Amino acid sequence: MSQLIPCIIAGGAGTRLWPVSREAMPKPFMRLPDGQSLLQKTFARVGQLPGVERVLTVTNREVLFRTLDDYRTVNQQDLPLEFLLEPFGRNTAPAIAVAALYVQQQYGDQAHLLILPADHLIRDEQAFAEAVATARELAAQGYLVTFGIQPEHPETGFGYIEQGQPLAGGGYAVSRFVEKPDLATAEAYVKSGQYLWNAGMFCLQVDTLLAQLQQFAPDVLAAAQNCLARSPELSGNKLCQRELDSETFVLAPDISIDYALMERSDRVAVVPCSLGWSDIGSWQALRELSPRDSEGNQIIGEAVLHDVHNCYIDSPRRLVGMVGLDNLIVVDTPDALLIANAERSQEVKFIAQELKRRGHDAYRLHRTVTRPWGTYSVLEEGPRFKIKRIMVRPGESLSLQMHHHRSEHWIVVSGMARVVNGEGDFLLNTNESTFIPAGHTHRLANPGVIDLVMIEVQSGEYLGEDDIVRFSDVYGRAPEVKS
Amino acid sequence: MSQLIPCIIAGGAGTRLWPVSREAMPKPFMRLPDGQSLLQKTFARVGQLPGVERVLTVTNREVLFRTLDDYRTVNQQDLPLEFLLEPFGRNTAPAIAVAALYVQQQYGDQAHLLILPADHLIRDEQAFAEAVATARELAAQGYLVTFGIQPEHPETGFGYIEQGQPLAGGGYAVSRFVEKPDLATAEAYVKSGQYLWNAGMFCLQVDTLLAQLQQFAPDVLAAAQNCLARSPELSGNKLCQRELDSETFVLAPDISIDYALMERSDRVAVVPCSLGWSDIGSWQALRELSPRDSEGNQIIGEAVLHDVHNCYIDSPRRLVGMVGLDNLIVVDTPDALLIANAERSQEVKFIAQELKRRGHDAYRLHRTVTRPWGTYSVLEEGPRFKIKRIMVRPGESLSLQMHHHRSEHWIVVSGMARVVNGEGDFLLNTNESTFIPAGHTHRLANPGVIDLVMIEVQSGEYLGEDDIVRFSDVYGRAPEVKS
Repeated sequence: MSQLIPCIIAGGAGTRLWPVSREAMPKPFMRLPDGQSLLQKTFARVGQLPGVERVLTVTNREVLFRTLDDYRTVNQQDLPLEFLLEPFGRNTAPAIAVAALYVQQQYGDQAHLLILPADHLIRDEQAFAEAVATARELAAQGYLVTFGIQPEHPETGFGYIEQGQPLAGGGYAVSRFVEKPDLATAEAYVKSGQYLWNAGMFCLQVDTLLAQLQQFAPDVLAAAQNCLARSPELSGNKLCQRELDSETFVLAPDISIDYALMERSDRVAVVPCSLGWSDIGSWQALRELSPRDSEGNQIIGEAVLHDVHNCYIDSPRRLVGMVGLDNLIVVDTPDALLIANAERSQEVKFIAQELKRRGHDAYRLHRTVTRPWGTYSVLEEGPRFKIKRIMVRPGESLSLQMHHHRSEHWIVVSGMARVVNGEGDFLLNTNESTFIPAGHTHRLANPGVIDLVMIEVQSGEYLGEDDIVRFSDVYGRAPEVKS
Repeated sequence: MSQLIPCIIAGGAGTRLWPVSREAMPKPFMRLPDGQSLLQKTFARVGQLPGVERVLTVTNREVLFRTLDDYRTVNQQDLPLEFLLEPFGRNTAPAIAVAALYVQQQYGDQAHLLILPADHLIRDEQAFAEAVATARELAAQGYLVTFGIQPEHPETGFGYIEQGQPLAGGGYAVSRFVEKPDLATAEAYVKSGQYLWNAGMFCLQVDTLLAQLQQFAPDVLAAAQNCLARSPELSGNKLCQRELDSETFVLAPDISIDYALMERSDRVAVVPCSLGWSDIGSWQALRELSPRDSEGNQIIGEAVLHDVHNCYIDSPRRLVGMVGLDNLIVVDTPDALLIANAERSQEVKFIAQELKRRGHDAYRLHRTVTRPWGTYSVLEEGPRFKIKRIMVRPGESLSLQMHHHRSEHWIVVSGMARVVNGEGDFLLNTNESTFIPAGHTHRLANPGVIDLVMIEVQSGEYLGEDDIVRFSDVYGRAPEVKS
């Protein structure tokens, strides 16, 4: 059989999982109780499928380095990684159309694309592999194949797929797709045994997909062709990545693959399956993955509870004391706290939306920000000073840069730093410090084999991240991108 | 009339107001919405009473400097301050007995003691002054005078005083003291008009008090006499303070003045009064001081609320998002978070008790610690490093000291520092830094006229506060007391 190209689609902020999921650290990166992120689990799941020799990911530059970090620890076969980088989110149809064109160019008409959201959980990997094998049979016959999850309860948060006639090789024709139903309708669906949850996963042979797009969504296909032609392979980089041209990508219709194609085509098949699937669409869904204690509580971190039951408490850094409460979700992060009635955890998205409307940092950023070279956390800000903890991974290096308005004091608390400071170029060992006056060009690198951890105290009249002049950058960010 | 000596009793941690009130920053220091602490309000209230020429405070060394800080801004008449410093809490009877003996020595038999808890609120200061005038009339006649608050509702959290026959000069004899009643009893008390809340405030002429103690609590009196004799005035200090001898103070019975004396004596009078009094005994009581918004919420700090009503949210530093909740108390501090059902805010004490049982720091300490010279906050701790923000008030100075195991990097972010570092003695201006190697004697002082704010990054194998050798200290803490 032809090559199978898993295509992991990492888009969307997952606003219902605020304050852990945010625009700059979205839901795919959330750690589950076992320490792995949803993205890592998705990668590991497809990496072991037969016929997989590479993994394609559609994501954006903002989270690319974090994605690579996550993949590094689970890519044990050292599969080649390919990336299509969206300049902004444009729903699933343009992303999938560009992926199909890209795969056609690279691997030919017969390649199979396995489209998977990056932020879903599948617990039964054996059942998943079997469903994929069935889906590939159908894809090879020229079907657009969806995966239909056997419903476990009358969920009103998902769309459903009505299954039709059985097809040769397994699976069924699709009678129709239906929108999120009300509760009574959902109950009838579950009872009928004919309806499946639409999980947004697809298996598609490239030539079929492109022909069907040409027929049912020619505007999407044309925009994708135009965009990919203007998005050359990035040079000077060991990764295979294409940064999609923003001027043409913006012309693609903002539409899902379901609306653009699946609901219109008559060549859609569904593979019914029970995968232990969850879209982790809310804190309530996330808590279902963890056992409860004898009081019905689930506690991450330290808590002192007095007559508290059925609460989910995620506070890894701070002590929580609670009195006389039932069925709450409490999620604590360094800069923001969520307290929600667990029965209404879907409505957490309204908090994130309101923060976005206000232009609040807590919608977009965490206190710890991931950079290509490592991470930084703002520990404290005050008048005329800002303190960061900076972690630089072994062998990595920040850009050669200069600030007009701030001085920086650097103190190494673990590891070894190599520092360029004006004319100087020297090593700084643990417990040593240096002072970078405003106006001095400087660079920080980790020449060692363990993480470099440094405390940076900035002082000056203006401490904005935009006071930076970048002279050279190993990650291709100079001169226009910020640190 | 004789001299009136207000005696402010500052004891007890106020565990029902955790996590703001803690052992090292107890309830008297809590800021009310107007920015003043309960202690400051208590001081201001007594400072303006006629006949007051000095203020006596019974407290402990741990909070002495914080007390002085609070008094400084409200002691506009520059009243002399006197302190009796308890080595540990021993309930009210020993404290009041020692205070009476001390006042007798200093100001004679006829002085009037006005005993006031440091952590109650009285909004009607005119009514308070009138009640004190009446109480002094009765004290001069040889009564032990209590203040009885006209009950506003059938409170089950207070003891009650049953008033008896009216006395010449105002007030009433006391028929009896009664314990905290159940609700039905409390309702009957309020309805009868004969019962008053026992607010724990007393007005006592020293000779009467000592004679009555001799008769009804001779063991308390003897222990107090013995202790005071062994507690000499501290020399070399501009403050008038007596540090009570711990070896003898521990021999005093741990008993309240109510049990030891008031409930036994037949010379007890009560002055009924309506003072706008509150003991601020819980978060629920505290919230009653602030207006509610149109949703019934009270918010300190930034909050994003979705269908949230009747909640008290005190989170000055971090964003709080809440969904679908009613009648909660949320109190956020840098290291601990409280979430309580508002109807059960009395039970917050169980959280504090459990923390005490576990020996948890969050029972005792805040992240910001007050010292004689200013404050420090631990911003971050990690392996091999600790970061503090240190504020030194103008003219103040830390002790000359040395650490065996840690180096310190000091960076001035505002103000001017004078630094002794080994052999050196120099000034450090804003944005300058110095490095103190382990083993170097050093001292930090603020020679300027504005607060000195400094970031200290400690690094080393061991970073405990007990790694300190103190050579000299202007606050009398060398060599045995910790920084």
